[in-house]
Amino acid sequence: MVITIVGTGLIGGSLSIALQEKGLASHVIGVEHNPSHATKAIELGLVQECLPLADAIQKSALIIIATPINAAEQILPEILNHVQDQVVFDVGSTKSKIVEAVQDHPKRGRFVATHPMWGTENSGPTAAVKGAFSKKATVICDKMHSDADALAFVEKLYATLEMHILYMDSTAHDMHVAYISHISHITSFALANTVLEKEREEDAIFELASGGFESTVRLAKSNAAMWVPIFMQNRENILDVLNEHISQLRKFKSSLEKENYDYLQELIEKANGIRRILK
Amino acid sequence: MVITIVGTGLIGGSLSIALQEKGLASHVIGVEHNPSHATKAIELGLVQECLPLADAIQKSALIIIATPINAAEQILPEILNHVQDQVVFDVGSTKSKIVEAVQDHPKRGRFVATHPMWGTENSGPTAAVKGAFSKKATVICDKMHSDADALAFVEKLYATLEMHILYMDSTAHDMHVAYISHISHITSFALANTVLEKEREEDAIFELASGGFESTVRLAKSNAAMWVPIFMQNRENILDVLNEHISQLRKFKSSLEKENYDYLQELIEKANGIRRILK
Repeated sequence: MVITIVGTGLIGGSLSIALQEKGLASHVIGVEHNPSHATKAIELGLVQECLPLADAIQKSALIIIATPINAAEQILPEILNHVQDQVVFDVGSTKSKIVEAVQDHPKRGRFVATHPMWGTENSGPTAAVKGAFSKKATVICDKMHSDADALAFVEKLYATLEMHILYMDSTAHDMHVAYISHISHITSFALANTVLEKEREEDAIFELASGGFESTVRLAKSNAAMWVPIFMQNRENILDVLNEHISQLRKFKSSLEKENYDYLQELIEKANGIRRILK
Repeated sequence: MVITIVGTGLIGGSLSIALQEKGLASHVIGVEHNPSHATKAIELGLVQECLPLADAIQKSALIIIATPINAAEQILPEILNHVQDQVVFDVGSTKSKIVEAVQDHPKRGRFVATHPMWGTENSGPTAAVKGAFSKKATVICDKMHSDADALAFVEKLYATLEMHILYMDSTAHDMHVAYISHISHITSFALANTVLEKEREEDAIFELASGGFESTVRLAKSNAAMWVPIFMQNRENILDVLNEHISQLRKFKSSLEKENYDYLQELIEKANGIRRILK
């Protein structure tokens, strides 16, 4: 099968590797507006060629959108304008806006809204890795708005990639990911800025930084071009979670200020409840 | 060499494994007030026997304190009361209070204040692991207050464990770890409480939780018995960092509230500066 991947970065590139490895893709065409990324993606074997969008669609049975989500929202209606009976899916971190953008499109049924739950703090074609999606979850949103054959096609593809499929409506998805993913990135960015602001002895950080620091601050390396649009699109859910998070931090602050260590212990023991969820 | 380890949990147990593997310990005596931990530590081979403190000290060339830091601060003067020419070191996460607690003790010179920069979110003897300290940093504080032979002894021991030694005064140490370690734990506890408070669909969290969430929330599993005393002892430094962190989070909040996405991008790009420090 010939597959087009729009956006040959971390997610698009890693998907391409997986689709080629599993024998699903015989030929992958990249659509890439950044010329140096296009060259790199070909060099790394992520795609076999790069073509303009319309040509790529015409030659492909499947079109995958793996751009930042603001670009995805703009390019999806254009892709559907060119589609006959091909299948199109996206892999973006928010779902409500992209689904809205094509709700009245005559080819809406050819589109499946998905979100494979995998990523790293790196970006671009060189960030693409093997074995990225296996054993991870992927979400399919609003499946009733996709044609039955398009949905079945995407379900089969994710199953072949050994992913576990969850179904949600796009509104619920966006609310959940605000907790599960987006807030972690904001706290990590803010933590990095805290350290960079106050800790002038960078050598000390570098020398002392242990596993705990690295794991909480790692996400702060993430790319603004990817994350600003996510925060824009999921603004209300994120503000909701962020307000709650600041109020939870204030409880820790207050317990320390008042030297109320029973309360501090209670807060920590409550947090330990996360063991129920994260094994 | 016969070694006593006071506190046979995550750190004491892992140290014991390393010291036995490197041939530094021929016999390890545990001092453990929790009877089930004592039994478990012997069963796991972390220690060969458990004895009361005074007996253990009398039989040992080296005493390592690996209890929560509030207990360490209380037990250290008692240990020094029993010591002839043995060496004593601790492995606690804060250093100012423990150093203060023995500053006028006649045997102060036998004590070396240290902090190996390794840990996990787990606790107790069963949390002890092999190979924990190799290639990590360890801090020695206020070395001028230790006898030259005691200091050299501990330096050689850490070198044999393949650790990289940093020297700091205890005040600077406590300030740096507030940034590098303690604040990460507070944000992680608060993040866990945010999710547990607001996200009622725990199944959704469990299914969706991806690498980013796990890495930022993992520390929230950490033990209150260990962390309450750390937060107590390092209260002022932590409040300083926590205030800065809340103010950094408010900048993200404000950029979202005002839909000022240029500012949001600026905040993220500034946070990306952490790449200079975390390779």
